[in-house]
Amino acid sequence: MAKQKKAPRPRAVTPKGFRDYFGAQVTERAEMLNRIAGVYHRYGFDALETSAVETVEALGKFLPDVDRPNEGVFAWQEDDEDGKGDWLALRYDLTAPLARVYAQHRNDLPTPYRRYAMGPVWRNEKPGPGRYRQFYQCDADTVGSASMAADAEICAMLADTLEEVGIPRGDYIIRVNNRKVLNGVLEAMGLADDEERSAAVMRTIDKFDKVGEAGVRELLGKGRLDASGAYIDGVGLSDEQIERVIGYVSAKETTASYLESPEASDTSGEVSTELKLQAEYLRSDSLPDSVGENRLEGQFSLLNHLHDLVADSEEGKKGLDELAEVADLLEAQGYGPDRIVIDPSVVRGLGYYTGPVYEAELTFDILDDKGRKRQFGSVAGGGRYDDLVKRFTGQAVPATGISIGVDRLLAALREKGRVGGTESGPVVVTVMDRERMADYQAMVADLRNAGIRAEVYLGNPKNFGNQMKYADRRGAPVAVIEGGDEHAKGVVQIKDLILGAQIAENATLEEWKERPSQVEVPRDDLVAKVREILAAHGLDAGGRAP
Amino acid sequence: MAKQKKAPRPRAVTPKGFRDYFGAQVTERAEMLNRIAGVYHRYGFDALETSAVETVEALGKFLPDVDRPNEGVFAWQEDDEDGKGDWLALRYDLTAPLARVYAQHRNDLPTPYRRYAMGPVWRNEKPGPGRYRQFYQCDADTVGSASMAADAEICAMLADTLEEVGIPRGDYIIRVNNRKVLNGVLEAMGLADDEERSAAVMRTIDKFDKVGEAGVRELLGKGRLDASGAYIDGVGLSDEQIERVIGYVSAKETTASYLESPEASDTSGEVSTELKLQAEYLRSDSLPDSVGENRLEGQFSLLNHLHDLVADSEEGKKGLDELAEVADLLEAQGYGPDRIVIDPSVVRGLGYYTGPVYEAELTFDILDDKGRKRQFGSVAGGGRYDDLVKRFTGQAVPATGISIGVDRLLAALREKGRVGGTESGPVVVTVMDRERMADYQAMVADLRNAGIRAEVYLGNPKNFGNQMKYADRRGAPVAVIEGGDEHAKGVVQIKDLILGAQIAENATLEEWKERPSQVEVPRDDLVAKVREILAAHGLDAGGRAP
Repeated sequence: MAKQKKAPRPRAVTPKGFRDYFGAQVTERAEMLNRIAGVYHRYGFDALETSAVETVEALGKFLPDVDRPNEGVFAWQEDDEDGKGDWLALRYDLTAPLARVYAQHRNDLPTPYRRYAMGPVWRNEKPGPGRYRQFYQCDADTVGSASMAADAEICAMLADTLEEVGIPRGDYIIRVNNRKVLNGVLEAMGLADDEERSAAVMRTIDKFDKVGEAGVRELLGKGRLDASGAYIDGVGLSDEQIERVIGYVSAKETTASYLESPEASDTSGEVSTELKLQAEYLRSDSLPDSVGENRLEGQFSLLNHLHDLVADSEEGKKGLDELAEVADLLEAQGYGPDRIVIDPSVVRGLGYYTGPVYEAELTFDILDDKGRKRQFGSVAGGGRYDDLVKRFTGQAVPATGISIGVDRLLAALREKGRVGGTESGPVVVTVMDRERMADYQAMVADLRNAGIRAEVYLGNPKNFGNQMKYADRRGAPVAVIEGGDEHAKGVVQIKDLILGAQIAENATLEEWKERPSQVEVPRDDLVAKVREILAAHGLDAGGRAP
Repeated sequence: MAKQKKAPRPRAVTPKGFRDYFGAQVTERAEMLNRIAGVYHRYGFDALETSAVETVEALGKFLPDVDRPNEGVFAWQEDDEDGKGDWLALRYDLTAPLARVYAQHRNDLPTPYRRYAMGPVWRNEKPGPGRYRQFYQCDADTVGSASMAADAEICAMLADTLEEVGIPRGDYIIRVNNRKVLNGVLEAMGLADDEERSAAVMRTIDKFDKVGEAGVRELLGKGRLDASGAYIDGVGLSDEQIERVIGYVSAKETTASYLESPEASDTSGEVSTELKLQAEYLRSDSLPDSVGENRLEGQFSLLNHLHDLVADSEEGKKGLDELAEVADLLEAQGYGPDRIVIDPSVVRGLGYYTGPVYEAELTFDILDDKGRKRQFGSVAGGGRYDDLVKRFTGQAVPATGISIGVDRLLAALREKGRVGGTESGPVVVTVMDRERMADYQAMVADLRNAGIRAEVYLGNPKNFGNQMKYADRRGAPVAVIEGGDEHAKGVVQIKDLILGAQIAENATLEEWKERPSQVEVPRDDLVAKVREILAAHGLDAGGRAP
């Protein structure tokens, strides 16, 4: 009989750009999100979990008459007899579904509506190293309030959140700016009605970190030869216009040096004095009397700039007023510049927002791939956007909110030793006599009833070496052994695997003899002895080092 | 100028068959899953979170040469220059991804590998009332162990899990059966090599609840006229064959009446005696001496049946031996028939499994849509399946596991009052004077710092009635009011909204006067007074009734 040709075996791989998370990678993230949810809840935010799938129509950005409207998203068409099924897609963020939910349920939801959402989002982009097509987001937004109090609240909540998950005060800073200030600068430059050149200026500002002040000057003026030798056309601004932009972007440098000065971290006594002064100053156009020559020089000379830069622009002045209002509100709640600063240099993402914008940066140093020191950088950002549900209802609804970069924050916590690396595996009860499996199961039941993480070896027990290799791979702190002799005597052997590993690595013969890593105890003392060993290694019953 | 025609507004709706979860719907599920994860962790199971998206090839079931292989799943083709991109799909369960992960990482994973997974899965099916196309699953599986100890462990863990989330002992029962027993019955009927008729018998068994014993007899024999008048062809079995099947399926009835008998719930003293007797009995073919005439009649006459029904079938005997081994192991861990019973009547899902199968049922009554009493029914099920990774590697790997119906279990907990309905909203601080927003923010900051869930009203404060309506919609237990007069006097008004609602509904005029629902306290006593009111209503700082 001819052998039937078999189909080739499927490849066991994740799709490109997707990944799996194992063990602590899952539980550490879950714990962090749980803590964050606790803070959000305390602030009166309610959980919302939308489905992963939305209609392409509701997600927006895509044209329904395009054959396959999946630019940037994973999309497919519903089955339908006449081939006219809806196009569906995986959500690419948590804000678009919020807009849909608010438009759909606005009559049943409280107004303002404070909600938080946590979960994966999907992007149909080219994957790269460390760039995945599915990742977590964690958002909090207040919909339906135009009050600056909503923005101040989000900033305060963000500070509380970072501390709650384990970033100590001093290791982060939240910077607040306002989109209207930049609009004011553009207006003062005479670009209020020139959308094209305004956009070009914003794009150029975003390149500041890359090309520096001289590069920005060139790009705003006549143009510039880039690294590859190609000529980039300039925006064609006048020298005076260019000075205004430079004044604006150089604010960033000024603020950075200010934040590193001793004054910025001197928060003894009145922690919020400085914010109060900032607020006063933002309302006037000269330094408050109470600010001495040498004090707060950087920050205040920066603010001084801004009053000049926005000149007579009403929008610019409104932006400075809004900044002042946010500063006042934060001051009233006791959030000083050791946690939150008004910082007009924040430019990232400005294009999307309509009022206040905020960004949380971690200020401690890490080593990059090449071993160079650099600041950890941004872990969260957000701001006010007022067109949330207008697409659906025609009615503008003000909204403001924050998105935390879950993977980046988790990486920061690992960097600071706040999560990870300290959880051992379960206690492993080995199987010496397969006929007595019931006895071994009874042992793990005793251990578990005492809250101790424990398991019996369920592989083929013939080769004892394999069992010890298994315990090693599981990261087990303790192995329990009960052969026929032990059983007859009513005892068990308890092997301290952590101590055993230390001894194997370092010990002299004397130490080896003095500190036996294996002890025999009566079966009835099993739980007590295991608990004692875990405690000696600073582990709780779950195998965690608290 | 002609008005430009605008695109129609998008509809703000979820796609058909999808839904959103709000507030407590999200947090209650998260809390339940968190508790379940705690039990799984204690049993040595490790978390695994795979991506929502898999290649259609890895998911299996689908032919790569079909134009659009999305039968039952949501699938799409990757963009690719030559149109030959991979087909991707949303996972339809958590087992298929486990198979892929184990095949992909088997050299790095411990063997056996115990893992749990929780998350949404997607089915491209026609939605119906209460039937959604995205829902949660919660699985635990042990891969790489052929030992019955792995199955016994899963059953024990399932019992612990149900109690941990709040189903009290006595309100659930876990039934264990073995696929090989039914195979043995089929073999004894002479159908061992007749796959077609074996499958027809299994399908018929599944219809027992619907058509009853007489209906099953007809369907196994000559055929049957169904309710619509259509004639259903019979399987064409002999009378003797039919008797064997009836003997098997009627086991269900026998067991049910047994479980309702006083003996079944009499678990004083040796809780597990019965399982031990069951195990002894499964190994022999007569009643153990220790079993009296009247005791355990139903259960043991059932087991008596089975020895007869499988006759000389080696597979059937193996199945009974495996059942006995599981019973022994559970007995050793103290799991008596008040929690877990060997029950050969479990037929559901047998087609998929190769050895032990188990099912958790909640035994308390609920009222159905029509007000009739019925048992809550199944909330979890699972069993042993040995072809998990064979598709990928060619190597058979034994595995056994359980899947909890998350939505059903949550519904059961709501039914029992274990979750839901007891969480109030946040304390709402109203805004009497919008210029003093900073003061109100300071109040909520004080409340939050004391751990009390609190928020300031962020809508337009002009109409005070709207603020109180908002507090009502938020389910706020307390509202705080500070107008200009109060501010001048350094006091705040605190309104007990729960008491207020009670008084509004029931109180006489005297009570109204005696129990004022609004009190004035010094601003400094705000936190203490709010805490006192929450405590008086049995609420903790988060607004929950513990």
